Order: sequence, then C-alpha cells, then structure tokens
Amino acid sequence: MLPRAIDWAGDRIVLLDQTALPRLTTVEVTDVDTLIDAIRRLVVRGAPALGVAGALGVALAARTLEGAELETAAERIAVARPTAVNLAGGVRHALAAAAEGPDAVLAAALELRDADIAACHAIGDRGADLLTELCGDRPLRLHTHCNAGALACVEWGTALGVVRSLHQRGRVELVVADETRPLLQGARITAVELAAEQVPYRVVVDGAGPSLIARGLVDAVVVGADRVAANGDVANKIGTYPLALAAARAGIPFVVAAPETTLDPDTPDGSAIEIEERAPEEVFTGGPAWNPAFDVTPADLVTAIVTDERVWRPG
Amino acid sequence: MLPRAIDWAGDRIVLLDQTALPRLTTVEVTDVDTLIDAIRRLVVRGAPALGVAGALGVALAARTLEGAELETAAERIAVARPTAVNLAGGVRHALAAAAEGPDAVLAAALELRDADIAACHAIGDRGADLLTELCGDRPLRLHTHCNAGALACVEWGTALGVVRSLHQRGRVELVVADETRPLLQGARITAVELAAEQVPYRVVVDGAGPSLIARGLVDAVVVGADRVAANGDVANKIGTYPLALAAARAGIPFVVAAPETTLDPDTPDGSAIEIEERAPEEVFTGGPAWNPAFDVTPADLVTAIVTDERVWRPG
Repeated sequence: MLPRAIDWAGDRIVLLDQTALPRLTTVEVTDVDTLIDAIRRLVVRGAPALGVAGALGVALAARTLEGAELETAAERIAVARPTAVNLAGGVRHALAAAAEGPDAVLAAALELRDADIAACHAIGDRGADLLTELCGDRPLRLHTHCNAGALACVEWGTALGVVRSLHQRGRVELVVADETRPLLQGARITAVELAAEQVPYRVVVDGAGPSLIARGLVDAVVVGADRVAANGDVANKIGTYPLALAAARAGIPFVVAAPETTLDPDTPDGSAIEIEERAPEEVFTGGPAWNPAFDVTPADLVTAIVTDERVWRPG
Repeated sequence: MLPRAIDWAGDRIVLLDQTALPRLTTVEVTDVDTLIDAIRRLVVRGAPALGVAGALGVALAARTLEGAELETAAERIAVARPTAVNLAGGVRHALAAAAEGPDAVLAAALELRDADIAACHAIGDRGADLLTELCGDRPLRLHTHCNAGALACVEWGTALGVVRSLHQRGRVELVVADETRPLLQGARITAVELAAEQVPYRVVVDGAGPSLIARGLVDAVVVGADRVAANGDVANKIGTYPLALAAARAGIPFVVAAPETTLDPDTPDGSAIEIEERAPEEVFTGGPAWNPAFDVTPADLVTAIVTDERVWRPG
C-alpha cells in the first residue's frame, strides 16, 4: 500500500515526493514558499491532488497571516501552475472560510481532502460500470497516459481509480501505460501504482500507443484531465490527443475520468485553455526544444467524461 | 560537414558510429560478424544506408568466400533486421554479381552507394517542388520524425533531403523534430544534422507533435519510410502514425520521402509487414515493457510518396 500523495499532519503538509519515485520519500511543508516550489517541481502533481494542495496551502498560510496578506499568499499558490483549474479552485474553497479564522480554513481544506477520496471511489465505480457496458463484461486491455492515479489524488485515483475498480471485479487483462515524456510519469509513477496493486501492465513509448490501438491490441483508452471546458474539450498531459485520434479511428472508447471540480464552466472551449510551456531542459539539453505540458482533445473525440456525479457524453 | 554515414575505404567498410552521436567516431568493419553486430546495434541505421551496408557487406564477404558459403553469409546479413526491405535488397543486388568474382561484387555495391546519393538529391528536389506546390512558395514549418537524413543514407537524406533542398532555396522557417523514443534518433541525430546545416529547429517529445499540428504550428509533415507496401501503406519508425492522424485532421500534407527501392511490390499492404519487436530494456529497465520499433500508416492518410522517380499519391 502506497502512502497518500498529500495529507495533513497536525501542523504541516506531508507530500510523497513524486520526483523521487520509485523511491518512497516524503517532503514536509511548513511554509507557502516551500509548497509553491514543490508544486512547480512536480513533487505533488495531478489535478485533484493540486486542489487539495491549494486548500491545505491556504490553511497553512492562515496560521500566521490574515486579511490582505493571506489573500496575497493564496493568490501566489493559485498561480503556481497555470493549466490546472483545481489548484485555484482548492485555494478559493479554503479562502472562503478565512473570515471564520484559521481552524475553519483548515476544516474546509480537510473537507476537500475527504471529498476527493469519496469522489475517486465514485469515479472508479462509475467508470468501471461504463467500460463494462461499452466493452462487455470480460477482462479488458486498457490504455492510459501519464498518471491519473492514487498519486495524482489523495488515494484511489481517477483513470487508475477506474482501473482499480475494474481490477477488484477481476476485469483487467492488461494496462498499457505510456511512459509519458518528458518527465516519465507513466514509467515512474503509474508503473509503481500498478505493480503495487498487482495489475498486469506494460510500459510503452508515447509514440507506440496509437499503433497498438490500430492493431486491435487495446479495448479502451482511459485518461484523466487537468481541465475540461464547458463544451467538453479536455486538456490533459501532452500526448493524450494522439490516443484520442487513434481511438476514434479504431472505434474504441476514449474515456476521461475526472472529478466534477475539473470541469470549468468559465472556459468555453479548448482554445481558451492556456497551455503551460515548461523548461526546454526537461526535453533535451543539447539544443533548442519546445516543451508544452498539455494538449487539448476536442470534445468530438471524447466518448464520455466520467465524474463523481455523472457520465457526460459531450461528443 | 558531417562524414558519410557509410563508405568503402579500399578494403573495409567505414561507418560513422550513430550510437555515439553527437560525438563523431567511426567504426571500421573488416568482417561480416562485425557488420551484423553494427546493424543490430544501430551503429548504422536508416533504410537506404542499410541497403548500402548490405551490398558492401556482401562485397566484404566475397573477398574471402564464394558459392554456398558466400550465399550463407549474405543471408545472415539480409536478416540482421527484419523490417527494412532495403537491407535484403542491397544484399541481393551485390550477390547477383557473385559469378563474376569479388571485383564485380564490389563494383555492384559501389554502384548502389552512388545511386543512393543521386536518389537522395532527386528526392530532395522533387519533394521541395511538391511542398512548394502544396503549401505555397514561402518559408515552411516542417515536422519530421526519427532521422531520415544524410545519416540514414550515404549523404543528403530523404525526408531531410527535402528539408535540405528547401533550405537551399530559403524556404525553411523551422523544423520541428520529434525526439523519437526510445533511442532518440531525432534528438541525437536529426538535431546534429540540422545544426550542421544551420536550419532553425526545435526538438519536441513524441507526444507533442499531434497537438502542435492541431494548433496550426506546422505546415507539413515529412518523414522517411522503412518499407512501403504495394497499396501505399507506409512502415516507418514508431510514432509516425500519430503524426499522420493529426495531419489528416488538420488538413495539412503528410509526405513520405523514400527511394523507389523502399517500395515493396511483394508486400500487398501494411498487415503483411512484420513489425520488429526490440528489447524492452530500450524503453525502461524498471518493469515490463513493449517495444515495437515501427508502425504502419495506412495509405489513405498519406498525401504523397516522393521517390527518386515520381510523386505517388496512393490515398
């Protein structure tokens, strides 16, 4: 059993350091600057976990700051990474309790943590039901990208929550996990999670996924999301869009698993989503590089978005 | 100016060691076993270069062997890598002169080397004409995958031959080069070639290409081929197919640049192409992996195949 990706320990935030995986080490966070640095360095990552990180970060700040100072600290946390709507959402949720004092802010943040755990289990069960309906009641070969797992949330996970729920039912034959360059979240993090659950898996290079789908070796794609626009366009880790293109051509389901909090009604469509450009050095240090961290999958390629409340078919 | 990827030096084959790039070191080959090992380890790679390697390998063998022994050595070279039709073609071309003695075999192999140089220049000019016709007479933003360059041939290159010809005409704004996991031929080899020619370029992770195309940042895709089936299906380095899917959706040209020798009339379509599975350790050493080396792009996604003789539009 892996430790939680993020949790509260009485007076501090404890993060499982995801840059050190497969080694299991934790980072203790007692101030806002350390938290912002951890968010930027991807010590904690994944949309739902970032929501909890944002809320707990405000709870931490509220122990020593109030009023305009607290709001400034909260705003700094909210913009630590631009694409994830959950981060700013978590910050807002905790900050809304600021007038009632630091204990209320902490209570609001812990409420978000517990709600995330409940949401992941609901997503897992609903997604497992959907894939069984779409693909048949048999062990499935599932393809996933990046890490939308327990370590992207607090526990259980979104896309890997669906895998976990199906695995509990004996309905997973194989998970194909993209290695997910440049930071290898699939090879490092998803692989660790699947191995811990004894789910059979194979890691592949990101370029291989679409042709494995074309060759009939995959029954369904299931991925997470960093932001879902009002029209159903989905921003997720760079390399998600090619899987959606291949799934559509092969006629297999492309399912997005994400909490309702990832849905952003204020973003009309994918063109309004700011795509984070990360440092070129992450790609390759020998010459010039481009490093967009996310891509946008248009709604017409999305079979369904499974949330903790519903199945939405935007296409 | 880079040294030739492969050449003959009086009594031996000289290979530029492409596993050591960007460091420029050569491997001298005086026996068949060393050549086979070099082919398997990708010291020499790229379909046209492999054709010349096959032919020069037979020339090397013909210095000491004849009859059935020579044929056995030739067959061992021909199957050193399964997907590249050129390797076996080069072997056959040189072996056809065996009855006339070792000097004739060498002459046949050198003829193939010189024909490859001429073919690359013809492909480059014809491809440059085609892209100007398709995209307009202006500096273009081109996307390529793996390395179909001078270092995949003897000199000039196929897909990068088209880039070189356009660059000579002042019609290249930018080349986007996929890093090409697992062996990083794009980041290591294509980047070295483009830097040597002072062509502006950016390396991107393989998962990023399709979304850059969707965002309108690319005017055309130009790639090489390891084998083209009779119906126009194209086998090329794993990760090519997603670019073709994205180009088709975005309505930009997807152009394949390859010598006529890459066209295999005996392969009816892509389903008949054996896909080389390479060692999982190339992907990731921490757990189970799949490592298919090629994918197949269906003919209907191919705008044109540019050869040294013609422009073929199979779609």
